[in-house]
Amino acid sequence: MGARAGIVVTGTEVLTGRVTDRNGPWLAEQLRRLGLDVGQVVVVGDRPEDLHSALAYLSATNDLVLTSGGLGPTADDLTAQVVGDFCGRESAVDEELADRIGAIVDRLMARRGWAVDAEATREGTRKQARVPAGALVLEPVGTAPGLVVPPAQGDGPPVVVLPGPPTELQAMWPAALAAAPVRAVLDRAEELRQDTLRLWGTPESELAATLRRVDDQLAGLEITTCLRDGELEIVTRYAPAAGAAYQRLVDAVRADFGGTLVSEGPDVDTLVADALGSRGLTVATAESCTGGQLVARLIDRPGASAWVPGGVVSYSNTAKQELLGVSAQTLATVGAVSPEVARQLADGARSRFGADVGIGVTGIAGPGGGSPDKPVGTVHLCAVGPDGVVTRSLVVPGDRAAFRKRTVTVGMHLLRSLLLGGPPA
Amino acid sequence: MGARAGIVVTGTEVLTGRVTDRNGPWLAEQLRRLGLDVGQVVVVGDRPEDLHSALAYLSATNDLVLTSGGLGPTADDLTAQVVGDFCGRESAVDEELADRIGAIVDRLMARRGWAVDAEATREGTRKQARVPAGALVLEPVGTAPGLVVPPAQGDGPPVVVLPGPPTELQAMWPAALAAAPVRAVLDRAEELRQDTLRLWGTPESELAATLRRVDDQLAGLEITTCLRDGELEIVTRYAPAAGAAYQRLVDAVRADFGGTLVSEGPDVDTLVADALGSRGLTVATAESCTGGQLVARLIDRPGASAWVPGGVVSYSNTAKQELLGVSAQTLATVGAVSPEVARQLADGARSRFGADVGIGVTGIAGPGGGSPDKPVGTVHLCAVGPDGVVTRSLVVPGDRAAFRKRTVTVGMHLLRSLLLGGPPA
Repeated sequence: MGARAGIVVTGTEVLTGRVTDRNGPWLAEQLRRLGLDVGQVVVVGDRPEDLHSALAYLSATNDLVLTSGGLGPTADDLTAQVVGDFCGRESAVDEELADRIGAIVDRLMARRGWAVDAEATREGTRKQARVPAGALVLEPVGTAPGLVVPPAQGDGPPVVVLPGPPTELQAMWPAALAAAPVRAVLDRAEELRQDTLRLWGTPESELAATLRRVDDQLAGLEITTCLRDGELEIVTRYAPAAGAAYQRLVDAVRADFGGTLVSEGPDVDTLVADALGSRGLTVATAESCTGGQLVARLIDRPGASAWVPGGVVSYSNTAKQELLGVSAQTLATVGAVSPEVARQLADGARSRFGADVGIGVTGIAGPGGGSPDKPVGTVHLCAVGPDGVVTRSLVVPGDRAAFRKRTVTVGMHLLRSLLLGGPPA
Repeated sequence: MGARAGIVVTGTEVLTGRVTDRNGPWLAEQLRRLGLDVGQVVVVGDRPEDLHSALAYLSATNDLVLTSGGLGPTADDLTAQVVGDFCGRESAVDEELADRIGAIVDRLMARRGWAVDAEATREGTRKQARVPAGALVLEPVGTAPGLVVPPAQGDGPPVVVLPGPPTELQAMWPAALAAAPVRAVLDRAEELRQDTLRLWGTPESELAATLRRVDDQLAGLEITTCLRDGELEIVTRYAPAAGAAYQRLVDAVRADFGGTLVSEGPDVDTLVADALGSRGLTVATAESCTGGQLVARLIDRPGASAWVPGGVVSYSNTAKQELLGVSAQTLATVGAVSPEVARQLADGARSRFGADVGIGVTGIAGPGGGSPDKPVGTVHLCAVGPDGVVTRSLVVPGDRAAFRKRTVTVGMHLLRSLLLGGPPA
């Protein structure tokens, strides 16, 4: 095992789930690429004693500790102060830094057209400019400077203090990596590869049986499996020396699960985007129960405007008829939640947007709207393209949010099977 | 301070960000309502030594420890075993429990129509049925049983072991609360209130000045402020005895920020949904750059079909014209990203869906597509309703994901200001 890092994410808003942390995972992936394994991400609120004990916990087993958040101008933003105390370093206002932050705040307020209370701004600015003695300042990207704080006694890991807003943290990252105490840790890092196999339609217990069977050939691999939204991911981390063992794992999975192995790397979003891109095809959507999440997922990718002309979310039957040409008679005889309407939605999306591929989704997300023969969770999907038609009907367990997420993933696999073949959605 | 709890979320897929943790925040909120303050959420991968040290860290300062995940049938699912070891309790297979799990797995496989390898299933089942001596079994909701494990020596907190899938964890929660060791902790809990004030258009530094000014009147309040997507949240936790102090905080915020105070509780989604519901109005969307995220956010709420007939995502100019009636001449003269097109999108959404309110969004999410006079981040929004028209034009900083998220929030505030007045979006 090479060098390791631990991450503290601060903020009561993260701890209580009002804000979803994006920094822990982003930092973990950046560090992994640099060969630093992340053992723990700790989320703490805005209490100094909790941050202090988190730093102690992570310092015990890691070569580098990183914090995100708590660098704002309000009194609950305490990270710089607490890290300084933890590292045994007195903090003081860096007057030149305070001036630089002040200039940034003035520009920002002017751009937003907000009135500024100069005195309030100045107090906040001076708070943000407090720097522990001997710490390296990372210049602000937003208004908050970051820090690299070496331990006071020369033992323990250096602590990298980064701002909470993901855009600021990411923009500051290169400066953090360039700091001498961080470089010294990176010099001890070893390459750590990560590769992923993806199955669609294999239960986790069968995969477990295969892994047990070939276990003695897999030394040096750290394998984790994760079933979500019907997709079984096998993620393996390994040093380059274990490359042959990884190949044996791939061979075993191919041999036992060739029929459900959809990818030896890229996720289904990438498979679909690449298939559309390489064949110059476009796709349009017509959704009811997923309410725009399918088209939003397709459009998540930069450049999606080249292959997604658009989509319609048609919750009401009137919208299904008028915007997508679904037949009133079909709605009257088999109902909106039916394979027939899914097909007409797909056809409608395709023709209204002039797209090569159309996909239709109709179902009951709940909690209301179910009936004995069409329970909550019932959903029908259909994708139509130049090469044919694929369909899927199922009942998705779980709540409204789980239903929508799972159904969107099934929709992505429907497009994948239409464009690339492989296991049916 | 009353009783406290700490949470461990296990799983390399969470640690590396492939899966977003929903359990930590959910558990934190449930525990808060029961009067148990959550100090830390720790995310660890699937390594036993990391889970063990996380348990030690959390046990040192908490009255209750909870874990989620790591109860599956594969070899990397180690939580039950490690918790048993940590609490000094030997684990052994509970044969009757193994039979019950086996029956569940058989039913599940049959329903999915998956072929089952009986031997593989049995090994996984027996692994899932290993129970530390003296632990209480929480009956499986999916296939994995939960556990309540008392400490071996009578000191240290009990550990509640819960499954990773949020639906299973939530369904198992009442059984966990009913367990005697958990009830004993809850008996020591004290009521902990949480209330939220929301400002739209006030910089954090000005709020900080107000909080400093009235600081001596706010004893007993734990105040955190969080600026995101332009919204400034003030979340306060306090014991009932500090109710008068909370009222003083509300008065101070009302006095200083009456013009930007949009809510003394509900979030903007609730404000908009309630305003539509109480007036019996419907809303339809026409989005380009936000790609369906606005309509998806409106539809996130159960029952949304009553007030959202649907929306159109029109990425291409052709779709804007044909599906929403945007004028070809407007597109040719001022371009798709313009206040004029935002207005026509809003009108088009309103008329095509026969909705009372229409909202249009057009902008450049990036990374491509910008120009000197319309840089990446440029966006125009317009909402039209029975009482008038509101608009907003701005340049949003940050990457594609940040742009879309922020723009959707501005769209929600545009609807809020159209329906309820208050500070402009």
